[in-house]
Amino acid sequence: MNEKVENPVEGGDKRIDRLKITKVSSGNKEEIEDVVVAEAPLIILLNKEKVITLLCTPQDQECLAVGFLFSEGLIQNKKDIEKINFDRKKNQINVFTRSKRQFPSKFPQSRTLTSGCAKGVTFSNMEEMDPSKDLLIDLQTTLSSSEVQNLIHEFEKKSVLFRKTGGVHAAALANKEKILIYFEDIGRHNAVDKIFGKCLLDQISCEDKLLLLSGRISSDILAKASKSGISIIVSRSAPTSLAVKNAQKLGITLVGFARGSKMNIYSFPLRITT
Amino acid sequence: MNEKVENPVEGGDKRIDRLKITKVSSGNKEEIEDVVVAEAPLIILLNKEKVITLLCTPQDQECLAVGFLFSEGLIQNKKDIEKINFDRKKNQINVFTRSKRQFPSKFPQSRTLTSGCAKGVTFSNMEEMDPSKDLLIDLQTTLSSSEVQNLIHEFEKKSVLFRKTGGVHAAALANKEKILIYFEDIGRHNAVDKIFGKCLLDQISCEDKLLLLSGRISSDILAKASKSGISIIVSRSAPTSLAVKNAQKLGITLVGFARGSKMNIYSFPLRITT
Repeated sequence: MNEKVENPVEGGDKRIDRLKITKVSSGNKEEIEDVVVAEAPLIILLNKEKVITLLCTPQDQECLAVGFLFSEGLIQNKKDIEKINFDRKKNQINVFTRSKRQFPSKFPQSRTLTSGCAKGVTFSNMEEMDPSKDLLIDLQTTLSSSEVQNLIHEFEKKSVLFRKTGGVHAAALANKEKILIYFEDIGRHNAVDKIFGKCLLDQISCEDKLLLLSGRISSDILAKASKSGISIIVSRSAPTSLAVKNAQKLGITLVGFARGSKMNIYSFPLRITT
Repeated sequence: MNEKVENPVEGGDKRIDRLKITKVSSGNKEEIEDVVVAEAPLIILLNKEKVITLLCTPQDQECLAVGFLFSEGLIQNKKDIEKINFDRKKNQINVFTRSKRQFPSKFPQSRTLTSGCAKGVTFSNMEEMDPSKDLLIDLQTTLSSSEVQNLIHEFEKKSVLFRKTGGVHAAALANKEKILIYFEDIGRHNAVDKIFGKCLLDQISCEDKLLLLSGRISSDILAKASKSGISIIVSRSAPTSLAVKNAQKLGITLVGFARGSKMNIYSFPLRITT
């Protein structure tokens, strides 16, 4: 059945499970009820052909499926999609494209990737994205460090699921003023794929927007953002060396350790005014 | 060239990169030198056939390659390995097995998986590991909550790279008394694969040991641990619902949020005495 994409901000109970645990404190054991973050498989098919199984937070799965297929270069825009069938009982989403191209050589048939996985950003993709010779860097999207501070403050306030379970990563799309889309997922890459899947489905342009992250900025996260035209990435955590190097090549502003009024800018600091 | 596995605890400079960044504090910009955690590709080949490209912390790559191949069921023990060639210039490790079985159907040829990725724990593997009917649960390995507390304290003290860069996950193998093996990696799964790769290479049995983790316990991490015979996993972070469910099936004690004298026990609390 084809279901509507849900509000990504309003979380339901399916993101958590309640269970009995044993709490130990200073040597005393006590049985209590607690919540843990839900993890469930999502099988993604493209034109009935199995592409991958992801382990994810079982919410907004359509956004994840579409974002994943977009990140992998298997769909380019909303027009490519004919319909999306989501079989909730089987945890299975089938995306049908207008052009019925099959992708048997690129993906194995029965692969489960994981909550924390970027899932197949190939080096060929990375190289395609390296426009070292004729990169025209657009520095028009700028914001002030106090705008970054306000956005990070809003971002932290939204992390209800993290406060409940301590087990998720958050990602958001924002403009200078406010957060537009927000997702939490057990997978750092899933949260980002959900953002770009939502953007594709709702035809939201990313080019004048920021990507906000709770987790680390590794080269694969950077690759996903670059593909969507994001020019500023702000994270509460650290970037890796390869992410910084690729951001410098791709003209992306990387901001890490954005906490309170402090932040580190790793590339293209001109976009952050003070 | 075939290189010796390095000391996993003593880190060298190759785990970090120094670079110039722009530090912003309360609206003031300043150029400073800072360190970021290094990220580099590692191409793993089995009998000259490319299995996968991982993005990882460029240290102890032999442990990672062997641990990954073990986690994927492509090698079972040290005897399977004929030799390991590590070409550092190409970031490429070739593991040669005594039996020259090829695995073309299971893995794609040019796949880059990522720092945060468990890389192919298939459901068939998960199902193979579900011994719901005839599981004989060994409850002989026990430890007290104060022993857990001491181990977590030692674990936290070791995280030099995290304190330097804020960008890594740690994993350790320990007995009741102390930490035996310790790795930090930008990838949560890489750190765990390095542990079990080291165990395989040094023929260390895991059955009476604990796995300590800084990061979340998701179902794929649990699957890796289960494969090595670990019966107790202790993390500073949260588990997911699927990890708890599978731990209950597999007879594994899951401890989360182990901080100071507090911890939550999600399965088989009998192994933790007070």
